[in-house]
Amino acid sequence: MKRISILGSTGSIGLSTLSVAESFPERFQVIALAAGKNLETAFEQARRWKPRVISIAAEAHAETLSDRLKQAGLSEIEVVYGTAGTIRVATHPEADFVVSAIVGVGGLEATYAAVKAGKTLGIANKECLVAAGELITAEARKHGKPLLPIDSEHNAVHQCLRGGRMNEVERVWLTASGGPFLDTPSSQFHLITVAQALNHPTWKMGKRITIDSATLMNKGFEVIEACRLFELPPASISVLVHPQSTIHSMVEFVDGSILAQFSLTDMRLPILYALTYPERIQSDMRFHVNDLRHLDFRPPDMDKFPCLRLAYEAAEAGGAKTVALNAADEVAVAAFLEGSIHFDEIPGIIEDAVRASNTGALQSIAEVLEADAEARRYTRKRISKTLESRTTSV
Amino acid sequence: MKRISILGSTGSIGLSTLSVAESFPERFQVIALAAGKNLETAFEQARRWKPRVISIAAEAHAETLSDRLKQAGLSEIEVVYGTAGTIRVATHPEADFVVSAIVGVGGLEATYAAVKAGKTLGIANKECLVAAGELITAEARKHGKPLLPIDSEHNAVHQCLRGGRMNEVERVWLTASGGPFLDTPSSQFHLITVAQALNHPTWKMGKRITIDSATLMNKGFEVIEACRLFELPPASISVLVHPQSTIHSMVEFVDGSILAQFSLTDMRLPILYALTYPERIQSDMRFHVNDLRHLDFRPPDMDKFPCLRLAYEAAEAGGAKTVALNAADEVAVAAFLEGSIHFDEIPGIIEDAVRASNTGALQSIAEVLEADAEARRYTRKRISKTLESRTTSV
Repeated sequence: MKRISILGSTGSIGLSTLSVAESFPERFQVIALAAGKNLETAFEQARRWKPRVISIAAEAHAETLSDRLKQAGLSEIEVVYGTAGTIRVATHPEADFVVSAIVGVGGLEATYAAVKAGKTLGIANKECLVAAGELITAEARKHGKPLLPIDSEHNAVHQCLRGGRMNEVERVWLTASGGPFLDTPSSQFHLITVAQALNHPTWKMGKRITIDSATLMNKGFEVIEACRLFELPPASISVLVHPQSTIHSMVEFVDGSILAQFSLTDMRLPILYALTYPERIQSDMRFHVNDLRHLDFRPPDMDKFPCLRLAYEAAEAGGAKTVALNAADEVAVAAFLEGSIHFDEIPGIIEDAVRASNTGALQSIAEVLEADAEARRYTRKRISKTLESRTTSV
Repeated sequence: MKRISILGSTGSIGLSTLSVAESFPERFQVIALAAGKNLETAFEQARRWKPRVISIAAEAHAETLSDRLKQAGLSEIEVVYGTAGTIRVATHPEADFVVSAIVGVGGLEATYAAVKAGKTLGIANKECLVAAGELITAEARKHGKPLLPIDSEHNAVHQCLRGGRMNEVERVWLTASGGPFLDTPSSQFHLITVAQALNHPTWKMGKRITIDSATLMNKGFEVIEACRLFELPPASISVLVHPQSTIHSMVEFVDGSILAQFSLTDMRLPILYALTYPERIQSDMRFHVNDLRHLDFRPPDMDKFPCLRLAYEAAEAGGAKTVALNAADEVAVAAFLEGSIHFDEIPGIIEDAVRASNTGALQSIAEVLEADAEARRYTRKRISKTLESRTTSV
């Protein structure tokens, strides 16, 4: 019986994790849940899973949740809230395995606390690795615990890496769908609408990650995540465009052999893999290999998609550069989604924010959060200036 | 330093093995060589590699080889011949690793002797597994030694299997180029010429294996080999047509994940893998992943290529059936190559020979060789009858 805590239980990965737990009741016990803003879902999850403790994001929701659980005869479930609550869930003494699935830097402290407490981490939170990857991997190594990636690409890499030793890895190949603008001439990027950018060809995801897929910044983040997770230099991670997204990623070994992984594009599969590693257990999520027909590949175009290049540069430079890359991207994408800036203005804004950030290793999560806040301030100011100059020129 | 014996040193796999040994002189020492009929190549190999012992197929060649080595100042190299000589090479006390690459059932006794002597086997000889696989795998298991496949498909499977445990394997997918007649209507199979059948789209190989690729019998043999090597039932091995032959094979695990392996189509790669397993060492045989463009797949058509179905049936039936399948195929293909029978007559002849053979496990290599000889006799008689009836009807 694996005893799990879920950070971000009401989000997409959290729901998928609970769905996996539901399918294998004899294998998984849910010890603790950290929910987001959705009080109703949090209540339902507490009622269904009877965790030892549930955390809710807003203090204002905690009492309501506590009252409703009491009315439901579940007063033994402890209700906590905010960052301290999330950390309580992340470090619950009965939990073996923590799923880190809170979106954004809000999940950083709790994730770091989990790994410091010696928990095995399943990581779906991009920021954990992009912004604080070195701190987290160092703690995991100290405790001798694996970091198990819960996204299709890094999970695929993790699987392929089993075909050799780490010092036998020549290169990691992350596949990329290429997003909806793979074949759009860059001259038309200025006019791309939010609706067009949200129309991802293969995966249905949240808004920010969908835009990040359209700019290839998401793949850039994945390059950085791969560097952190597998302790490889950026130059050893390559991206290959593969529009069908069938092959989730590949590992090239020093002898010239390449292993590739594929499966249904269902997030429950990497979650199941992470939760059961080093075992594999029978699932009904079958890829019908006999239906395989065509797979296409091509190298990525970094001139057309400068965000990918920016990610490589930030990864090489290190320090706060990847923190700034993530923070600036989040702010710029939000500005695009609200209609303030054009699609093709996103990369330049991020580039400036990264340039303005510091190198030099960050020593703590506090320093990471400070660098993050600083980059957000910078980016908002930079966007304001763009908008002002636009008003002025009109 | 790995000390190797090569059975079949003057054949294609033997030459590739020596080429690998040449590239890594600090890793491999050639202890013993079993050459075929090519006296000149045998002499050159002995001079170059200075093995402890060299075996030559024909007794008539042994004295000449011995004399020439003496003249070259290499009288310390022991010269042996025939089956006894090959067995001496296979069981040389100084050898750790034996490459089994003699084509045909002629390699059976020596290969079995090697595995009985506790050597690690690199297997390129199809007959070892198709005809005597159960005997050989049982001996390898008894000595706790791995059987390392030296052909691209099974070597790929071996690599993919590292991604999980044997009891986590759902299915092995062997890829098949489909051969030159993948898109030829079966109504035209009667008129296929030897030259057409020898024109394989992706691999340059010997004549018999090229014809076996055209009938898909080669893939059928590989299904049987996979059953033996990985101790899986025929129903757990599937074939997928993949005309580019880029992906060499795949393994599907119980959780729904699939691992696939690819590399350059160069036999030195699986040889290097087998010789260095469980390590991988740096080679310059790089697949240029960035040049990957299109991969196509489709299920095989067993009505059009009945040899594949025959192989599954023989594998299911067991006993001497797979011995007969191999023997009858060799005789039928030879008859096709010499112009005696038509391409579309091959499967029916083999089917009759397999039907005429016995079930019931074979207990020794002697029994295997007896079943092989019996099937050859049967097949030759069956072909004679076909030819007679043709003459009569004309």
